[in-house]
Amino acid sequence: MQNLIASSLKYENGSLSVLDQYLLPHQQVWHQCHDVGTMKELIISLKVRGAPLIGLSASLLVAYLAEQGVVKGELEKAINELEATRPTAVNLMHCMAALRRALTQSDYVAGIVTTAERLFIEDIELCERMASRGAELINSGDNILTHCNTGALATAGIGTALGVIYKAQQKHGNVHVWVDETRPLLQGGRLTAFELERWKIPYTLICDNMAASLMAAGKVDKIVVGADRIAANGDFANKVGTYNLAVLAHFHNIPFYVVAPITTLDTNTACGGDIEIEQRNPQEVRGVSGSFGEALWAPTNANVYNPAFDITPAKLVTGWVLDTGVYNQQQVLMGKLKELTQ
Amino acid sequence: MQNLIASSLKYENGSLSVLDQYLLPHQQVWHQCHDVGTMKELIISLKVRGAPLIGLSASLLVAYLAEQGVVKGELEKAINELEATRPTAVNLMHCMAALRRALTQSDYVAGIVTTAERLFIEDIELCERMASRGAELINSGDNILTHCNTGALATAGIGTALGVIYKAQQKHGNVHVWVDETRPLLQGGRLTAFELERWKIPYTLICDNMAASLMAAGKVDKIVVGADRIAANGDFANKVGTYNLAVLAHFHNIPFYVVAPITTLDTNTACGGDIEIEQRNPQEVRGVSGSFGEALWAPTNANVYNPAFDITPAKLVTGWVLDTGVYNQQQVLMGKLKELTQ
Repeated sequence: MQNLIASSLKYENGSLSVLDQYLLPHQQVWHQCHDVGTMKELIISLKVRGAPLIGLSASLLVAYLAEQGVVKGELEKAINELEATRPTAVNLMHCMAALRRALTQSDYVAGIVTTAERLFIEDIELCERMASRGAELINSGDNILTHCNTGALATAGIGTALGVIYKAQQKHGNVHVWVDETRPLLQGGRLTAFELERWKIPYTLICDNMAASLMAAGKVDKIVVGADRIAANGDFANKVGTYNLAVLAHFHNIPFYVVAPITTLDTNTACGGDIEIEQRNPQEVRGVSGSFGEALWAPTNANVYNPAFDITPAKLVTGWVLDTGVYNQQQVLMGKLKELTQ
Repeated sequence: MQNLIASSLKYENGSLSVLDQYLLPHQQVWHQCHDVGTMKELIISLKVRGAPLIGLSASLLVAYLAEQGVVKGELEKAINELEATRPTAVNLMHCMAALRRALTQSDYVAGIVTTAERLFIEDIELCERMASRGAELINSGDNILTHCNTGALATAGIGTALGVIYKAQQKHGNVHVWVDETRPLLQGGRLTAFELERWKIPYTLICDNMAASLMAAGKVDKIVVGADRIAANGDFANKVGTYNLAVLAHFHNIPFYVVAPITTLDTNTACGGDIEIEQRNPQEVRGVSGSFGEALWAPTNANVYNPAFDITPAKLVTGWVLDTGVYNQQQVLMGKLKELTQ
């Protein structure tokens, strides 16, 4: 396999490693990863996160194993196990399906390696295209609110929603970002803030519950978010709190865009109600934990509800920014997403 | 002054003390407080918090000082300094205004002591009345969402919004509470959870950004919140995140009630836009800090927006639950609140 280098995933000189996103922004630790058990643990514990990145990390591991001579049956088992790590993000399923097809080829080792390389390089290109299309929607002077982390850490390229912001800043140089912290796992406060600092894009951190008053004060011009899965009717799953922002945007007449590569479409899923939502460990809500320390403030056994994602219905979306174009509600209602995946 | 005992404030055997709400729920530490500087620090650092409780704590201190023979000019200075500790909650201003009037009496020591005692006892009664009126709005089996902490810790009595829940549970015995954690200072996750455990009322803790998906799933029947100041037109200031919930409730057709004693009305303020909103320390948003430990996850110098409160417009409120009755939008638009304070 050729060397493949991204912000948080790299295959270099025969070794696969991932940046530990749980430890960011205060520690930058890379984990070598050469077996299925390790990769599963890295994904489940969110050390590897971001819908596109999860799929690519799993793919590169399978390609590495194929090159190491792991037998066909074991590769198939690896693909199945990796696919089961997280139920919501569809990119992982798409990647594993592509590898499964490659496994049927006579030279399946070459097939798998080529497929993994293609998925990685394709993701970089998809990010560029989404960002270019999305940047056209942003004006100089815009205040843009974003949720969770959708940047270079979450993809092989410059990101989805955050890639749009990066490109808009390159284009206009006059963008300001409202970063909501994204409880419980703080991907906004830790990762998006970290990326925007690295990119020198002005930002202001807020708690998730402060977005409404900013909108009422006219301080938010646009909202851009990513997606973990987009259903055929345009409903989508994304980090919990996204639907909250969509309702607020609707009430305040603020354009609300979802940015995703075509690999995030799942037109076999008819609508948002059919998307499985992962419930996570209650301890995440009882407090916080990370390289920054640990703090548990709630009563020790407090009953907790902790869905990782929520569903935003298509009717609240102004535009779907995909690598193939920006689609409005009417186009999506007319079946555009289904058409794109045929 | 007679002995006066509440959950988080007591005057007993000549000594005034307050429960440290910053250290809850894991430590229960009472601070003795016999001078203005100490009380100011306790209020500013939110060790003493809750709109009614701030006013009462300051009042009992002034009464204590009067009994100790502190001269008139010093008492007046104390009243002014205490009043300036927090700009948004109006109960403090009302209490200090009452003491200022007492100070003009010939026997101003007796006047101040009587006033402070009256304010304390009145608050207990106001809580009872609000709770009884509010409980009539709740049905057996209701799932009620609340924000921040508005219980016995925040008042001399059983609380405002949380008092309603307590009374409803006494009445029906079949209430479940969604407690949102209330970033940045976690008064929901720490204090409301603590009070509901003590009262054995079933609750589930969520992050602030999870409320929207609960509402979409039909899992929230009513929302009850407190207030720090209610303007003449019914707009009100409350803990940041309240307006967020009001917009979500409106979108999902969920009744949204604000619960407050008449002492929270400020009909000299015409509308929400005229209420001053306190900005707090950026460090509160960069991480968390408390008896549970300290954790700073954002980049060290991350730019932060940290308003303590937001404004909910009257048009999003289903009912104002006051000690004098429950008022609907039409009544409030017709000037009911102004009438109540005349």
